[in-house]
Amino acid sequence: MSSKKKVCIVGSGNWGSAIAKIIGANAARLDSFDDRVTMYVYEEMIDGKKLTEIINETHENVKYLPGHKLPPNVVAVPDVIDAAKDADILVFVVPHQFITRLCSQLLGKIKSDAVGLSLIKGFDRAEGGGIDLISHIITRNLKIPMTVLMGANLAGEVAEEKFCETTIGCKDKVLGPLLHALLQTPNFRVSVVDDVDAVEICGALKNIVACGAGFVDGLGLGDNTKAAVIRLGLMEMVKFTELFYPGAKSSTFFESCGVADLITTCYGGRNRKVSEAFVKTGKSIKDLEDEMLNGQKLQGPFTADEVNYMLKNKNMEAQFPLFTAVHKICIGEVKPQQFIDAIREHPDHKSKL
Amino acid sequence: MSSKKKVCIVGSGNWGSAIAKIIGANAARLDSFDDRVTMYVYEEMIDGKKLTEIINETHENVKYLPGHKLPPNVVAVPDVIDAAKDADILVFVVPHQFITRLCSQLLGKIKSDAVGLSLIKGFDRAEGGGIDLISHIITRNLKIPMTVLMGANLAGEVAEEKFCETTIGCKDKVLGPLLHALLQTPNFRVSVVDDVDAVEICGALKNIVACGAGFVDGLGLGDNTKAAVIRLGLMEMVKFTELFYPGAKSSTFFESCGVADLITTCYGGRNRKVSEAFVKTGKSIKDLEDEMLNGQKLQGPFTADEVNYMLKNKNMEAQFPLFTAVHKICIGEVKPQQFIDAIREHPDHKSKL
Repeated sequence: MSSKKKVCIVGSGNWGSAIAKIIGANAARLDSFDDRVTMYVYEEMIDGKKLTEIINETHENVKYLPGHKLPPNVVAVPDVIDAAKDADILVFVVPHQFITRLCSQLLGKIKSDAVGLSLIKGFDRAEGGGIDLISHIITRNLKIPMTVLMGANLAGEVAEEKFCETTIGCKDKVLGPLLHALLQTPNFRVSVVDDVDAVEICGALKNIVACGAGFVDGLGLGDNTKAAVIRLGLMEMVKFTELFYPGAKSSTFFESCGVADLITTCYGGRNRKVSEAFVKTGKSIKDLEDEMLNGQKLQGPFTADEVNYMLKNKNMEAQFPLFTAVHKICIGEVKPQQFIDAIREHPDHKSKL
Repeated sequence: MSSKKKVCIVGSGNWGSAIAKIIGANAARLDSFDDRVTMYVYEEMIDGKKLTEIINETHENVKYLPGHKLPPNVVAVPDVIDAAKDADILVFVVPHQFITRLCSQLLGKIKSDAVGLSLIKGFDRAEGGGIDLISHIITRNLKIPMTVLMGANLAGEVAEEKFCETTIGCKDKVLGPLLHALLQTPNFRVSVVDDVDAVEICGALKNIVACGAGFVDGLGLGDNTKAAVIRLGLMEMVKFTELFYPGAKSSTFFESCGVADLITTCYGGRNRKVSEAFVKTGKSIKDLEDEMLNGQKLQGPFTADEVNYMLKNKNMEAQFPLFTAVHKICIGEVKPQQFIDAIREHPDHKSKL
């Protein structure tokens, strides 16, 4: 990598724009980084004008993060290759269904010693009955080493510069401090740990648990029950990681990417909200996505489906009763009223003496 | 111990009465226990009638758990020695300031092979600048081995038989399963772990964190900040336990007594509620206790004071910035608006690479 690192943010949605505020300000402030930060923006017309032009003139992503100014050194670029070709650090923050196509566009067009940082939460289905981590997909398709950033970071609150924490997963002892410097601000506190896979897995699995928390809210079951569901969900997250990505430290689940993100998502996130409405209205997840999310897909039911695909293939559904019940409720195979019955005899309740 | 174990519940407040519902029903149902469960009730007059008489006639604790029937085999006894003298298992569930006097009343009057189960959350100040666990005080004063039960268990919801989990700390491999049987129901799921001290410490320290969560709510700082405060509080709970009660397993903090109770308390508990009002109204904790809790003492500020007494004596305040800030805010030494500044450079944010 060159001495002044160039950064490209691949993505410009709500979360991408919020993180651009932080990265742009830090790149301008710190000697280690080139001032100019490119942001790949999927071009759209807003009231007859190109979104990239609006962003570059007004420094506001009026579509995805209205009301917040981006630093002027963040430059919106409509062509992903143009945006990424000179970058030393590529920050991926796009919906995960776009990642494979993006990688194939970028392959061979970026610097050979570039590194990636993925902010993308979710899995992909792998051939042969398993699942793939997004950072693994990027590494495989784009031939670059990957790091990840996950945490209790509802985008709107990050943009408002409310105090929060986040976790970076990075094994490289030189790159770790550099990413720490690029992301940390007085209100966005970064911990770097080397458990990259576990950090990313937390970010995906918590959305399944949040659906369970939403069912509890919809059923009116109270605080004790919700805490039990969140805790059992956390236990399944730990167990899933131990089984399928061995070597993770239990301390990683105490980081912002673990317990804190789980709490935020189970109290403030949209998976919780839609799942509550699912119970109260009796409408399908699909209909609620159309009504409540402008047709955007909800991550929790999708991740639950992918995880179930793997657990079913491996005949391990019974070891993950909460993940399994959330999936079956989301697809209408089980009634939400049966949720608690499904986790009552949870394997985690076995004696630990 | 005799073959049919006799159980006495020492205490009859909101939580004591809720647990009496469970213990009474299980004792009546299971062969291992004597049907008759005594409950020590501090005698009061209610509309000209003794509370013990009302409970024994109507099977309802009209003062502390109105609207719920106790099993008829739970017998209210106004004399603590009468209630406890034949018991094999003593379940302590009184406000912790009464425990020393209770022990001195009971000393020499109970069975020599009795065992105790403490549901009491909180510490006591020890001579010489430290703190004492309630279960240790009981063991020392009453010469019986102690176990503890703590968890995400708001009493009202337990009484309503909403699904929840709890944790028993017990090192004894024979007693553990017996207590498990006495407490577990389809809606009250018990895990037994051998980390007795850590289970009890969680139950006390979480109330300090809940005050911090309440400050965040009062300041209107949002979900990310609240999750960060809860997480940093959890990290201080872990560190406190490691430093002062070494040998605890980190898995214990994943039990209901740990992360789940912490979540419940930080979202649904009264420490949170009063602390929010403290910020919003500017009134003192004392005035709010009078207004909102009928003069009952709030556990969080009290525990924060005890913990601070020890940390200050050991010159360790800087290692526990959240516990320290909560205490100083509660006593009016620091403004709630400075809470986030106090935890911004938290020692847990040091690189873990």
